[in-house]
Amino acid sequence: MSEAPPTEVTLDEIVSLCRRRGFVFPSSEIYGGLGSTYDYGHYGVLAKNNIRSLWFRAMVQERDDMVALDSAVILNPAVWEASGHVGGFTDPLVDCRTCKLRFRADKLEDAACGRKPSKRPGETPDCDLTEPRQFNLMFKTQVGALEDESSAAYLRPETAQGIFVNFKNVLQLARRKPPFGIAQVGKSFRNEITPGNFLFRMREFEQMEMEFFVPPDEAEQWYRYWIDERVAWYRKYGLRDSHLRVREHTPEERSHYSSGTSDLEYLYPIGWSELEGVANRGDYDLTQHTQHSGTKLEFVGEGGERYTPHVIEPAVSIDRILLAYLVDGYDEEVVAERQRTVLRLHPALAPVKAAVLPLIPRNGDMVERARALHDELRRRHMVEYDDGGQIGRRYRRQDEIGTPFAFTIDEQTLEDDTVTVRDRDSLAQERLPLGSVAAWLDQALERPWSSPKA
Amino acid sequence: MSEAPPTEVTLDEIVSLCRRRGFVFPSSEIYGGLGSTYDYGHYGVLAKNNIRSLWFRAMVQERDDMVALDSAVILNPAVWEASGHVGGFTDPLVDCRTCKLRFRADKLEDAACGRKPSKRPGETPDCDLTEPRQFNLMFKTQVGALEDESSAAYLRPETAQGIFVNFKNVLQLARRKPPFGIAQVGKSFRNEITPGNFLFRMREFEQMEMEFFVPPDEAEQWYRYWIDERVAWYRKYGLRDSHLRVREHTPEERSHYSSGTSDLEYLYPIGWSELEGVANRGDYDLTQHTQHSGTKLEFVGEGGERYTPHVIEPAVSIDRILLAYLVDGYDEEVVAERQRTVLRLHPALAPVKAAVLPLIPRNGDMVERARALHDELRRRHMVEYDDGGQIGRRYRRQDEIGTPFAFTIDEQTLEDDTVTVRDRDSLAQERLPLGSVAAWLDQALERPWSSPKA
Repeated sequence: MSEAPPTEVTLDEIVSLCRRRGFVFPSSEIYGGLGSTYDYGHYGVLAKNNIRSLWFRAMVQERDDMVALDSAVILNPAVWEASGHVGGFTDPLVDCRTCKLRFRADKLEDAACGRKPSKRPGETPDCDLTEPRQFNLMFKTQVGALEDESSAAYLRPETAQGIFVNFKNVLQLARRKPPFGIAQVGKSFRNEITPGNFLFRMREFEQMEMEFFVPPDEAEQWYRYWIDERVAWYRKYGLRDSHLRVREHTPEERSHYSSGTSDLEYLYPIGWSELEGVANRGDYDLTQHTQHSGTKLEFVGEGGERYTPHVIEPAVSIDRILLAYLVDGYDEEVVAERQRTVLRLHPALAPVKAAVLPLIPRNGDMVERARALHDELRRRHMVEYDDGGQIGRRYRRQDEIGTPFAFTIDEQTLEDDTVTVRDRDSLAQERLPLGSVAAWLDQALERPWSSPKA
Repeated sequence: MSEAPPTEVTLDEIVSLCRRRGFVFPSSEIYGGLGSTYDYGHYGVLAKNNIRSLWFRAMVQERDDMVALDSAVILNPAVWEASGHVGGFTDPLVDCRTCKLRFRADKLEDAACGRKPSKRPGETPDCDLTEPRQFNLMFKTQVGALEDESSAAYLRPETAQGIFVNFKNVLQLARRKPPFGIAQVGKSFRNEITPGNFLFRMREFEQMEMEFFVPPDEAEQWYRYWIDERVAWYRKYGLRDSHLRVREHTPEERSHYSSGTSDLEYLYPIGWSELEGVANRGDYDLTQHTQHSGTKLEFVGEGGERYTPHVIEPAVSIDRILLAYLVDGYDEEVVAERQRTVLRLHPALAPVKAAVLPLIPRNGDMVERARALHDELRRRHMVEYDDGGQIGRRYRRQDEIGTPFAFTIDEQTLEDDTVTVRDRDSLAQERLPLGSVAAWLDQALERPWSSPKA
């Protein structure tokens, strides 16, 4: 994370919109919450569903070289010994013997002394800090009825290891040979000591990871390929070029097993930060699991050639993608002397695709036609019917949740069977025959879209 | 679970098919596995995605009275105090001081003595069983850097409580009033002492729960309504009537707070067992959380009326639904003197909607047209291209994973631009113009379907 440059929207504004419109709530709020844990409300769930299914479509459905996997959260603990997580997935912590608080030794500049919060730990005479010790970030639990070390297990801190331990199953049973990939979506858990920044760093988050297994001499080429593919995916769904960059890790930053890692960084309100990582993991993972499990995780070709594939991994969380698109799409403008807040989301990402609004909610004929249109449209799309309040207020509610189109049933509809369609971004209105709305919406949702702010 | 009646397919046959075709693998297999934990392979993921999205469509997209939620797995532990899980979500366990094994006190008849496995615990002279003690089924962990009781937390054993603690958020921010529901899909975790029966009882499973909040005097009527709705949903996707029944719990079976619970039971190979539960939970949950949190969870109408809503809950896991449909659809028959295994799944549930097969894989023209058709169809559906082996073998591979349609590109295609479509169930073949295949498939997937075995 680098220094924070000026951005157009603050994290507080995003948090406020998310809470106000039911995208995201602090978790367990009526019990005082739980640090850095959030619950997704209605529109948050719908947006996440869109992100998940668009990722899955691009990574699995539209490709020949990919299979899906959904491995367990609690794996055999030997997996985490082999992967190096038991030994090395740690942060250095120090305790203060005076104020009894615990801090990350490498982040003391961001911490506040427990007795004098204006000072950082170590800056006041009565601070008494211990030497740093390593704290493992995996959540530990116990499986089975015995409460001792023999039953210890961990919640996965990443989905990737579930993929590696299934490599042989996929090779054999899905009849695959490199290059091919295994894609997985699911929750991961990290007992972060200093989580924060809303959806950016949470203790539980929904990962989308893909491990792409390739012949060793093709690793560099596929590493570049996946960086380009993932950048193209974000662009396709309208993320602004000026807010997205690729930053290659320096050799010092990289994990010891990595021969190349690039972050796709987004210009979050906290500054340029990792949205997605693409790593060339070499043969580290398959080699480790071969050594620890005694099962050879290698590819043997029909001609007898034999090698341990190298692995390219694009890894991201749905939560960070959602946060990036919320920031990217957030806009405020004054229209007809009134301020409106609008989420300029790509229609494919928008939680609700269209609103159906009877202009005069007490007019039975309008309501009847609006209901019929709503029933027709929601067979194929997430669509909302709203008859609550002035039409301007209803438009603004839809703007705030990013609904790209609104169909209004008015007096003229009762005369000539046409409706008004209002465009969220341009505010242009046009009339369409009622009977053609469903087909019009199908097409409109497929049109390329780019941010009017770009 | 009642006595096992004769069924057509054994659990072993289902397990074998699932492993052979990559629906489900034992988890962490290369490390010896982890009891009652499974990883879903490619076709398992696709089938689960279908179940999840069909449930979501019926419960949320097609209704006016429902919102979605995705709450955290690790909630503030006070939630589980209030819900009664810390105190009462337990099984009684006994230890044997001789063989050092631990057993469920209420299931001793199913257990084997650690020294003489032909006997049950307590039946041999040297068994030395302790008194039963209560063992909590929630997985425990610790949040934050301190390892003491103050940081103890639990993995949720059900998604429902995350819904109850968000009741007020939804009421206020989604402008809802009873009757309305909150629907959620997500993993739950139970440290079962005697899990088993494949996907039927796992330590982690993906729940789909919905809590429907109603005025107290409408509870009974909505309880009946939701039983009927859920039965209709299973029927719509072709589950055989003869394998599905509704069994109302006796007053002795019910939870103390329930004023009515019905199981939708399916005839699994282990006998009639709970597929889905529909419970009338009364005002128990909202009252408990009001008392423990100090936040009033009640509905206040515009006219000032005020009440604690009653709750109707249909709760099921995707895993049990998948297992039911796999059992229901599994069939073996002899066709042209060859045995075939076929999964007769409703097309909406089938992992792959269609296969595209070039009859002669080394014929470049056939391959080119097959590839083009495949590219066209997979824009909208999960479709497989297969050019491996004899055409009969390829058909059988698709039959085993339940693919309803196969399109074959053959000599005649090159002459007149028609393809053969083969129906999985009837084995009927007909020819279609190549250009009409996409529209034909769209329609075919929407047609009502019922099991030919019914």
